Amino acid sequence: MVIKNFRQKVLAPSLNLSYDDPLHLIKGLGQFLYDSKGNKYLDAVNNIQHVGHGHPRIAKTAYEQLKKLNTNTRYLDENVLNYAQSIINSLPEKLSICFFTNSGSESNDLALRIARNSVRNKNTIVIDGAYHGHTISLIEISPYKYKGLGGFTPPSYVHEIPTPNLFRGVYKDQSSIEKYLEDFSNCAKKLKAYGCKPTFIFESFMGCGGQIPLPTTFLKDACKIIHDIGGICIADEIQVGFGRIGKYFWGFNYQDVQPDIVTIGKSIGNGHPLSAVITTEELANQFNNGMEYFNSFGGNPVSSAIGHTVLKIIEDDELQKNALNVGFYLKKELLSLKKTFEIIGDVRGEGLFLGIEIVAETNAIKPNPKAARYIVNKMKELGVLLSTDGPDNNVIKIKPPIIFNNRDADFLLNKLDKTISLVSKK
Amino acid sequence: MVIKNFRQKVLAPSLNLSYDDPLHLIKGLGQFLYDSKGNKYLDAVNNIQHVGHGHPRIAKTAYEQLKKLNTNTRYLDENVLNYAQSIINSLPEKLSICFFTNSGSESNDLALRIARNSVRNKNTIVIDGAYHGHTISLIEISPYKYKGLGGFTPPSYVHEIPTPNLFRGVYKDQSSIEKYLEDFSNCAKKLKAYGCKPTFIFESFMGCGGQIPLPTTFLKDACKIIHDIGGICIADEIQVGFGRIGKYFWGFNYQDVQPDIVTIGKSIGNGHPLSAVITTEELANQFNNGMEYFNSFGGNPVSSAIGHTVLKIIEDDELQKNALNVGFYLKKELLSLKKTFEIIGDVRGEGLFLGIEIVAETNAIKPNPKAARYIVNKMKELGVLLSTDGPDNNVIKIKPPIIFNNRDADFLLNKLDKTISLVSKK
Repeated sequence: MVIKNFRQKVLAPSLNLSYDDPLHLIKGLGQFLYDSKGNKYLDAVNNIQHVGHGHPRIAKTAYEQLKKLNTNTRYLDENVLNYAQSIINSLPEKLSICFFTNSGSESNDLALRIARNSVRNKNTIVIDGAYHGHTISLIEISPYKYKGLGGFTPPSYVHEIPTPNLFRGVYKDQSSIEKYLEDFSNCAKKLKAYGCKPTFIFESFMGCGGQIPLPTTFLKDACKIIHDIGGICIADEIQVGFGRIGKYFWGFNYQDVQPDIVTIGKSIGNGHPLSAVITTEELANQFNNGMEYFNSFGGNPVSSAIGHTVLKIIEDDELQKNALNVGFYLKKELLSLKKTFEIIGDVRGEGLFLGIEIVAETNAIKPNPKAARYIVNKMKELGVLLSTDGPDNNVIKIKPPIIFNNRDADFLLNKLDKTISLVSKK
Repeated sequence: MVIKNFRQKVLAPSLNLSYDDPLHLIKGLGQFLYDSKGNKYLDAVNNIQHVGHGHPRIAKTAYEQLKKLNTNTRYLDENVLNYAQSIINSLPEKLSICFFTNSGSESNDLALRIARNSVRNKNTIVIDGAYHGHTISLIEISPYKYKGLGGFTPPSYVHEIPTPNLFRGVYKDQSSIEKYLEDFSNCAKKLKAYGCKPTFIFESFMGCGGQIPLPTTFLKDACKIIHDIGGICIADEIQVGFGRIGKYFWGFNYQDVQPDIVTIGKSIGNGHPLSAVITTEELANQFNNGMEYFNSFGGNPVSSAIGHTVLKIIEDDELQKNALNVGFYLKKELLSLKKTFEIIGDVRGEGLFLGIEIVAETNAIKPNPKAARYIVNKMKELGVLLSTDGPDNNVIKIKPPIIFNNRDADFLLNKLDKTISLVSKK
């Protein structure tokens, strides 16, 4: 049977495939992927395979630990403890207690449980465009989902504030951060007036929302507002953590904020189902109310050993520094391309987490999802994997394995120049 | 640092440890576990390591696939399709569409989304004592959690019916199944009167609730009642699937019911974070309402290859037959022990999913959690791992890797006889 038909027969239709002509991949090595027709692709989009595809150290770690022992956290085990300590070492001092889960969704769901248990109410402030996961509890706090196709009106305890997007938001220039903060503050004050200490969850760099770095001063002040009224701040680092943004190890470091809970996932295990929640002793103790938290797989020796190896690889191979340097170069060159092509409305992001906003030639703010889609499909033909996202599906996402080098960047830039030439005036 | 102190420092206190003197495990092989002091234990409790600890075929599969490729379901990949087909082949014909997730909790959460999307309401009938997972959506439908320590009043759309427990339930003998069905029917009828088609979720053999097989005629008729009013039945096979109950591959086969959705997990990947939801074409198509279902790790090539290998091991090594034969022998011998010791109130279950209810000597129905705890801790000292569970924490659970053999059973029985002699009159 043709593989596409086979898939249609056995997998749910709500599982999407990338590209107009989907890829049948058979091998991955480093920053490259290979399809069944013998084509090689430069992978500029798979952030989950953070330290590269088919990494031998990770395969070996899994193999050795799988032969040795795999159990659960109801037994004492050094793997999970050493790993937890390494994660804690990378975080601000007060974030010192770990939970391990199997996906970013499990982590954000648990983070909500911990926060709501503490503040004793469900009121949650979310940023328009945010995506926090696929469980029932998370779709209802993810505007990216509930406002999209198949969406719904969120529950009354979900409070959505405008995306502080200085390019396309309701307020547009740098000076407008104050206006975003005013909206945020009004929302928080209203909740306070009702006697509710809210939970504020944010991606410090928004991913699905369109690769939007939250303005530093915004996030710092927003978290202060929340803390002043006794609320809780959750930093969702699932898409940008582990050195991807280059200058700092975690996205919220960039924003100079002190979250009460941090959730991590995706790149954490280089593709192995693993994620974590790190919080303060105070919140962890409050959550210890008699109800056991047992996660069948979370924190098992194999997952822990793999996660620990990923951390060591980032450190040993200085990959955060690589993300900084290569990302700096790539962004600089993309900004040059922006000057060349009217269709590029914005280039943004940090490190190897970048976004290119594709707009109409006739209107520098009008989203152009058709051209974005064309570019991404054409780039695939030319051997470079990218994707589109954002509420208007017009933002091209660049988020490669962070081993991506300058030669890879040049290859991408060269193909992008050629591709955009086909759809945009210079 | 002493490992217990190290754990206390970095892991959340709501993560429990088994046994009064917790085990520091360092190795597992087959049905045996080894601690840091050089002690060997017969593992009669770790159902997750379904085909045995440290299985070489699984380690090799993981190693080979990790070196080759690990991506996600947005690309075409044969691993996930061949694996999906194998699972589908083990299920009734109409259950033909798969979703892959990373934990039983993710599966049950998704199952609720699929069901509620179809019936357009959240009314959910659950059985007292049930445990369906740790996400926000699942704790609120799990009486095992919301009625336990740190619990809460569940939302009004959760409808709890009494556990059809013929030993300890509100109605006690075989003839009382009709009374349980009447309660169930009244609940369903009430919802129908309000115009609501309910979702009914059940473990065909209850695990945390105290190793309780649901009476066959009860479950068959209960599902008929639900189907007659247009509701949806979800079989939660997370604890008992994959041949554990011996006579059949799935728990619901034993009960002769046709669920609309089946959720599987735990043993599915022998400890690798993997789980799945299988449903009908009709429900999968309804769920395909425009909202993509993307799970970062669910259905990745490595998880799929591992899951497929577990299925092949069960088949190649005829482990379902082993669970049937060894389980039959073990249950027969436990029933003999029951005749010997007054403290054993009930022995129940099928295959290698058995429960021993420990009661007061003076009262054959009064739960005796103190003795159960003593027995489990003493058995550990004697080299056999078991656990206690159930609402009264007085049920000893036997759910070993299904490679458990008659010699293992004899070892367990011998130690159990000795241990119970210490706390019970003959």
